[in-house]
Amino acid sequence: MKRSLGVCYYPEHWPEAQWHDDAARMVASGLTWVRIGEFAWSRLEPDPGKLEFDWLDRAIDVLGDAGLQVVLGTPTATPPRWMLDRHPDMLAVDADGRPRKFGSRRHYCFSHRGYLAECKRIVALLAERYGRNPHVAAWQTDNEYGCHDTILSYSDAARMAFRDWLAQRYQSLDALNRAWGNVFWSMEYAGFDEIDLPNLTVTEPNPAHVMDFRRFASDQVVAFNRAQVDILRRHTSAPIAHNYMGRETGFDHYAVAADLDIASWDSYPIGFLSDRLEASDDHKAAFLRQGDPDFQAFHHDLYRAVGRGRWWVMEQQPGPVNWAPYNPAPLPGMVRLWTWEAFAHGAETVCYFRWRQAPFGQEQMHAGLLRPDSAPAPGLAEAEAVARELADSPQAQAAPADVALVFDYASAWAWDTQPQGADFDYVRLCFAWYRALRRLGLNIDIIAPDTADLSRWRVVLAPGLFTLSDSLRAALPSCQGAVVFGPRANSRLPDFSIPSDLGPSLPGLDCRVARVESLPPGSTVGLESGGHFVHWAEDLDTRAEVVLARANGQPAMVRADGLHYLAGWPDDDTLFAVLRDLCHAQGLATMDLPPALRTRSDGRTRFWFNHGSQTITWQGTDLPPCAVLQQVQR
Amino acid sequence: MKRSLGVCYYPEHWPEAQWHDDAARMVASGLTWVRIGEFAWSRLEPDPGKLEFDWLDRAIDVLGDAGLQVVLGTPTATPPRWMLDRHPDMLAVDADGRPRKFGSRRHYCFSHRGYLAECKRIVALLAERYGRNPHVAAWQTDNEYGCHDTILSYSDAARMAFRDWLAQRYQSLDALNRAWGNVFWSMEYAGFDEIDLPNLTVTEPNPAHVMDFRRFASDQVVAFNRAQVDILRRHTSAPIAHNYMGRETGFDHYAVAADLDIASWDSYPIGFLSDRLEASDDHKAAFLRQGDPDFQAFHHDLYRAVGRGRWWVMEQQPGPVNWAPYNPAPLPGMVRLWTWEAFAHGAETVCYFRWRQAPFGQEQMHAGLLRPDSAPAPGLAEAEAVARELADSPQAQAAPADVALVFDYASAWAWDTQPQGADFDYVRLCFAWYRALRRLGLNIDIIAPDTADLSRWRVVLAPGLFTLSDSLRAALPSCQGAVVFGPRANSRLPDFSIPSDLGPSLPGLDCRVARVESLPPGSTVGLESGGHFVHWAEDLDTRAEVVLARANGQPAMVRADGLHYLAGWPDDDTLFAVLRDLCHAQGLATMDLPPALRTRSDGRTRFWFNHGSQTITWQGTDLPPCAVLQQVQR
Amino acid sequence: MKRSLGVCYYPEHWPEAQWHDDAARMVASGLTWVRIGEFAWSRLEPDPGKLEFDWLDRAIDVLGDAGLQVVLGTPTATPPRWMLDRHPDMLAVDADGRPRKFGSRRHYCFSHRGYLAECKRIVALLAERYGRNPHVAAWQTDNEYGCHDTILSYSDAARMAFRDWLAQRYQSLDALNRAWGNVFWSMEYAGFDEIDLPNLTVTEPNPAHVMDFRRFASDQVVAFNRAQVDILRRHTSAPIAHNYMGRETGFDHYAVAADLDIASWDSYPIGFLSDRLEASDDHKAAFLRQGDPDFQAFHHDLYRAVGRGRWWVMEQQPGPVNWAPYNPAPLPGMVRLWTWEAFAHGAETVCYFRWRQAPFGQEQMHAGLLRPDSAPAPGLAEAEAVARELADSPQAQAAPADVALVFDYASAWAWDTQPQGADFDYVRLCFAWYRALRRLGLNIDIIAPDTADLSRWRVVLAPGLFTLSDSLRAALPSCQGAVVFGPRANSRLPDFSIPSDLGPSLPGLDCRVARVESLPPGSTVGLESGGHFVHWAEDLDTRAEVVLARANGQPAMVRADGLHYLAGWPDDDTLFAVLRDLCHAQGLATMDLPPALRTRSDGRTRFWFNHGSQTITWQGTDLPPCAVLQQVQR
Ligand SMILES: [Zn+2]
Ligand SMILES: [Zn+2]
Ligand SMILES: [Zn+2]
Repeated sequence: MKRSLGVCYYPEHWPEAQWHDDAARMVASGLTWVRIGEFAWSRLEPDPGKLEFDWLDRAIDVLGDAGLQVVLGTPTATPPRWMLDRHPDMLAVDADGRPRKFGSRRHYCFSHRGYLAECKRIVALLAERYGRNPHVAAWQTDNEYGCHDTILSYSDAARMAFRDWLAQRYQSLDALNRAWGNVFWSMEYAGFDEIDLPNLTVTEPNPAHVMDFRRFASDQVVAFNRAQVDILRRHTSAPIAHNYMGRETGFDHYAVAADLDIASWDSYPIGFLSDRLEASDDHKAAFLRQGDPDFQAFHHDLYRAVGRGRWWVMEQQPGPVNWAPYNPAPLPGMVRLWTWEAFAHGAETVCYFRWRQAPFGQEQMHAGLLRPDSAPAPGLAEAEAVARELADSPQAQAAPADVALVFDYASAWAWDTQPQGADFDYVRLCFAWYRALRRLGLNIDIIAPDTADLSRWRVVLAPGLFTLSDSLRAALPSCQGAVVFGPRANSRLPDFSIPSDLGPSLPGLDCRVARVESLPPGSTVGLESGGHFVHWAEDLDTRAEVVLARANGQPAMVRADGLHYLAGWPDDDTLFAVLRDLCHAQGLATMDLPPALRTRSDGRTRFWFNHGSQTITWQGTDLPPCAVLQQVQR
Repeated sequence: MKRSLGVCYYPEHWPEAQWHDDAARMVASGLTWVRIGEFAWSRLEPDPGKLEFDWLDRAIDVLGDAGLQVVLGTPTATPPRWMLDRHPDMLAVDADGRPRKFGSRRHYCFSHRGYLAECKRIVALLAERYGRNPHVAAWQTDNEYGCHDTILSYSDAARMAFRDWLAQRYQSLDALNRAWGNVFWSMEYAGFDEIDLPNLTVTEPNPAHVMDFRRFASDQVVAFNRAQVDILRRHTSAPIAHNYMGRETGFDHYAVAADLDIASWDSYPIGFLSDRLEASDDHKAAFLRQGDPDFQAFHHDLYRAVGRGRWWVMEQQPGPVNWAPYNPAPLPGMVRLWTWEAFAHGAETVCYFRWRQAPFGQEQMHAGLLRPDSAPAPGLAEAEAVARELADSPQAQAAPADVALVFDYASAWAWDTQPQGADFDYVRLCFAWYRALRRLGLNIDIIAPDTADLSRWRVVLAPGLFTLSDSLRAALPSCQGAVVFGPRANSRLPDFSIPSDLGPSLPGLDCRVARVESLPPGSTVGLESGGHFVHWAEDLDTRAEVVLARANGQPAMVRADGLHYLAGWPDDDTLFAVLRDLCHAQGLATMDLPPALRTRSDGRTRFWFNHGSQTITWQGTDLPPCAVLQQVQR
Repeated sequence: MKRSLGVCYYPEHWPEAQWHDDAARMVASGLTWVRIGEFAWSRLEPDPGKLEFDWLDRAIDVLGDAGLQVVLGTPTATPPRWMLDRHPDMLAVDADGRPRKFGSRRHYCFSHRGYLAECKRIVALLAERYGRNPHVAAWQTDNEYGCHDTILSYSDAARMAFRDWLAQRYQSLDALNRAWGNVFWSMEYAGFDEIDLPNLTVTEPNPAHVMDFRRFASDQVVAFNRAQVDILRRHTSAPIAHNYMGRETGFDHYAVAADLDIASWDSYPIGFLSDRLEASDDHKAAFLRQGDPDFQAFHHDLYRAVGRGRWWVMEQQPGPVNWAPYNPAPLPGMVRLWTWEAFAHGAETVCYFRWRQAPFGQEQMHAGLLRPDSAPAPGLAEAEAVARELADSPQAQAAPADVALVFDYASAWAWDTQPQGADFDYVRLCFAWYRALRRLGLNIDIIAPDTADLSRWRVVLAPGLFTLSDSLRAALPSCQGAVVFGPRANSRLPDFSIPSDLGPSLPGLDCRVARVESLPPGSTVGLESGGHFVHWAEDLDTRAEVVLARANGQPAMVRADGLHYLAGWPDDDTLFAVLRDLCHAQGLATMDLPPALRTRSDGRTRFWFNHGSQTITWQGTDLPPCAVLQQVQR
């Protein structure tokens, strides 16, 4: 696979006279892809039905003729103002019952049929016109589903659609009432049209009600995206992508991606460090201008799974952004490092966001590769350096991983619905496990919760898995190594109820969760090893082999052959030690990397990344701050 | 009085086939009471007017025939979904103007006449059917009035009812305008129908307006409860109770209780420690799995007053709960300790909540005496231990107290309406005084603000009392010992205005509050004794005897004969010393108990409770963690 | 100029029989002004059209005949309840879409035409009746525009008015769409009636949209005030004032003041310290009972500019207030200190709020000069002391300042709209510069952003100025000394877009802001001098002389002749050193005052103020706590 670079560009923001120069500079910088069009609806259809595609024809031509391949976005994330007149009820409604108004973006409810029809109309027009355009080499649907908390809507449209969805799912009220346990607190329904959305209840709503609402909301995104894809497929054979976000779990990305060819995501390491990562103040200060050393990699590995191997970074942070609480600039070298790390994890293409900083609009303080005055911003030289380095690099190849981590969107919904401890969060849990594996210097595959064959991995990890799918259960014997289920794993039936045997119900493992505790910050459960459980601890009824015990002798981790159950949330060092020992038992070599040093190998080249602001000496080699080192392995 | 144990049970949650076994196990465990029915409306009346009481007939029979006495709850805290179709405007509305929707519980406005009529109808049906049932030995009205912040509603129904209430109270607009001081900021009304509820005003509403709204809201609860009691009385002679909550001050519990026979409350020590107690992080960590050592006792003593001597714990935490921010498990022994402490404070009956943990619904993570798989949870053995111990125990007898603490719901409303310092809270103030008395090892009576005879107590304390009632004023001479009024006591007229002599206007005590200060955390007023006033300090005009002075010589506490006024909020150690000296002057013996050790005596038996996780040696005796020690005194 | 004292009085709150005594006591205390009437609408017009002015006639007579000069307020901040029946849609609406209801004050939307007409009617009635009354020596319009966050309203009236305002401003949609950059995210409008207010958008609205809404909202206040002034002018020649608030930047005070004769403000040092000042806990604790030593002075100097030289303190805190989170009492001497500091900064008159503490209403816990029982509160003696001292004092004279600080309301709106760093605040920035100048012991003039002549000052400072006005640009050569533009200065065009040359575009200074960073607390950019930039740092493209550099050698402050640009937010000590060196270079003598000591000179008398609770020895003189020292200089 040939790796490549690209950039996001908004021809509609600039005088047409500038397009040629821009295209030429892109090509001269070594970029080969340009993404356009995803926010341009008001320019494509300034009035309802009045289409103005000529400028886009010309823009594609200018870019394509310069040698760039175009990713064309469908503009459905930004319906024009006139759309509101046609569909006044198309707006999403927030959990407080307030409509989320026009004036920024993503101002639509996924359940609104009228807006969906408009989207199909504009996508069809674009597909017909550009589906065979030789410059249009890929498509993007919409933009960042879920960004700005836009998956859940409490609108009338959503209410109606939810009732239909429930009727389809349960067929009878009786089935629904039983599944939800509605006898509790007299919550039984006599008609599907009696069921409301689970907001503004006096105290917390039934978790089963919420869980179905989360499933429904995810399905609405899948359907919205599929409607676009179905149309595009009729007119184009170019690959279709969507650009996902960081730490967005509002919908099942695997399900959306099943209809797409490429997964891509928008990687803003510095912004994400500040606004969506649990970490100490010291950690955040240490990585202020670099981003967290594992957060990007986690998403790279996740979206590689989501994309079934094909994935891009569609938007790569090139400098300071505008949307985080504080917006420092990347250390020199970090734009290059981020780009290479994406390639090390298997990205086909990394596109920077954006070409030239806009002097107007909400993102006027968001850096581009160019400044608003068209002078190069610091990120440009780093992108150009990567472009030169890519030219000398071998083709990318698939990178084997010995360890797999299951990531499941339904689990994120479930524990968000019922955290039981205020700081219990599924992503946080999985990320803690991921970080421990990274510290061990391992390649990691993230895998879907319905993975049917585990034979490729020596170690498979499934912390916090809401329910064990039939397919994953069936696949367990295929794993020749160790499988670890973690706290809360398979603790619920799909309807959210507690299984009659209490879980985790793992085949061949005599282990039952008798009781759970959530623990406030500072309170822990001591382990024999000297470490602790934090956040969460479980009492087990078990006669299985105890491989980790509490200080008081209670079992903390048990196993039967390769199948393990870990009955709590270990502190980071303990988790590291547990996973290290497990890997060693499987014959895997591990490291103990310092926090800023990370590595990945594709089997031929081992990449080293120093995310720190100080030089690290590792195995006799000095890695300066922000360094990328490629070691040929064979 | 014979002490007894019971449990809360939901036959409608389980297959009828299981009822017999459950009943038999309850009896075998030593339980003699079972509370049922309080959330079962949707099963009693699945459609409007379609009554299905047969299953309840059978449940009562099964339980009763097994030897259990039934407490039957009216199901009015959980109106079924069809009720909303009949009374769409019955929902309460929150202070932001949002209806509080169906989907959990307590989804009604106390002021809605249509819903009140429905409640009277279902209560009458139950009373007629079960009023003479020999197994139904007690009744409970509704469930946890006020839980989930449900006393104040800003609905149309509440607005109309409030206007009527004001018209009744004031008879004329002129009287209301004068009482509220509406000339201030041109707030005068020309008609009762011009008066709105005091929410969403531009800046704070008139405190007199808010105070009347609080009084009105309390009266609505009293009327709602009385309507049920009046019906029940016509059909049954069994005692009637309501189950109150912890730290719930939204309505006047004395007034509700005046219509009832028994006060009961729902005691969740671990949940309450975490979600409704001001305490340091260290304190909360020390008592994480035990609950605060004084919080339960405070409510036991309060509800003994509310119940005019007859009181129960209707729901006792048996294990981890689901609703606090974090939900750890009780230390082994605490379920027993909590139960015995309730008995030591005079409880007739302690019922655990609940028999078997539900695998569905909002409380699926709330422990029961049984696990969801019917295996015993750890709490069951402790309940059984208490049952055995009870069998060998003498009858309970009334326990004399030498000290009384006035607790007044109107004062809670008043200082909530006008805290003047952001952390001034009436319950917090009273609880600080209560804790100091507990540290002194004293039996304490909590008494109502209209208590007419004080002759039983050597020391009577009234911190923060909004207004001095005529009856309490008249009773002052009946106290042969010391009376202490604390900061803010009698500082207002009933209409919320400042009295013309500024207060506290205590008979025979030359003392006037010239000025008050509220103090932020960390700022204090030094006392001559070396201690400090925190939160609150008052400048006095006084020629009375000074018994405590500020470091600068100003009077901090004055007295005339036995009548004292304390002009600030002392730190805990100072308050302890002040109350100790006062007790000694009255000839009362005191202790200085460590924080985890508490005691109460009923005159014949002295109970000792170690709420700590370490052994305490006290007077030569070792009390292990969570120990209960009973010393026969005569 | 003769300095004088006054007091705010509410005759409608007290029996008429008391008025004579009150007036006599005011005069005996040395007060010469009394402000009345500003909340009395419900007493002037109890029913629509039913006028009752007789009591006000008599009150003015009683006060005037006693020798007091009356300031008469228009009562438009508190429309009576009946007004709502006439204009149900007159209420403001908050950003969440909730009407801000009757029941306190300021319950009106500035854009409501019906209410504006009512205001004009009542003002005309007052003006006709009292415009020539010899006792009415000044007028006040409304009360505290903007208090309780009342400038921005999201009502229908505001929406309609905003559209009209935009149509006037832009004339065409095309112009508006271009100015706002609405091509970004397809936000283009096809009609002015499509434009909504910028609240409740899915993510942040276009900053250009918000900025125009802020301008519009300010203009609405100006128009509202002007409507009253125009009427008053027709009937009176007495001066007209408005009483502004502390740290209120919701509207352009210069623009409102252009129609008025006197600026006045309401100074509550202790309340403001607690609720509207960024400062460390230690600082707040040190000045708990004194208020911040610079906060009042900053506003004195600001409102001197706003009033074009004529300014008052209309409400001076006389004791504890009721509205801050905590409300301690002033140290003895502070009421006198505050009063004298106002005079030192050029106040004509200081009025205390209020005469007698009200026993009812929202402010019943707000101290007056008298207690509710008419006994003197501690503040009265201090006011009387000032009155005696004034009698012996020379006339005030204009005080020259060598240093000017530009303060611009539009900049406050701009950086509130787009802080880019969560703690970037324009007032905070200007106040940091002001505090450094105060520490230098300098007299300071605050000046408007369109000041046309800078020749009076040796040093002119403009941190954070949104745009450089044409007039200020033209005035730059008139400054014979140093001019410093600070971070973010002139970084935007008036339409909010980034200028094509990136700014600051200062004449003759080769300096361009290439990139900016916002920094979280604890993260800094080191300077060569050892200090740091905090909050904000800018990368410059410059070939100008570097007068301050980063530790890494990058320019941090550059200059060309007297024109400087400071590319960051220095820590306090660094800012002090930078400004000190700048002053020295201009031949100005400076001090380095301790935090509690402040000074101002009017050229003849140098005033010293010890804001601390400890004695300060300065230049051989002991200043006790709260001392005021007047040194005759010539
Ligand atoms: Zn072409
Ligand atoms: Zn029977
Ligand atoms: Zn006169």
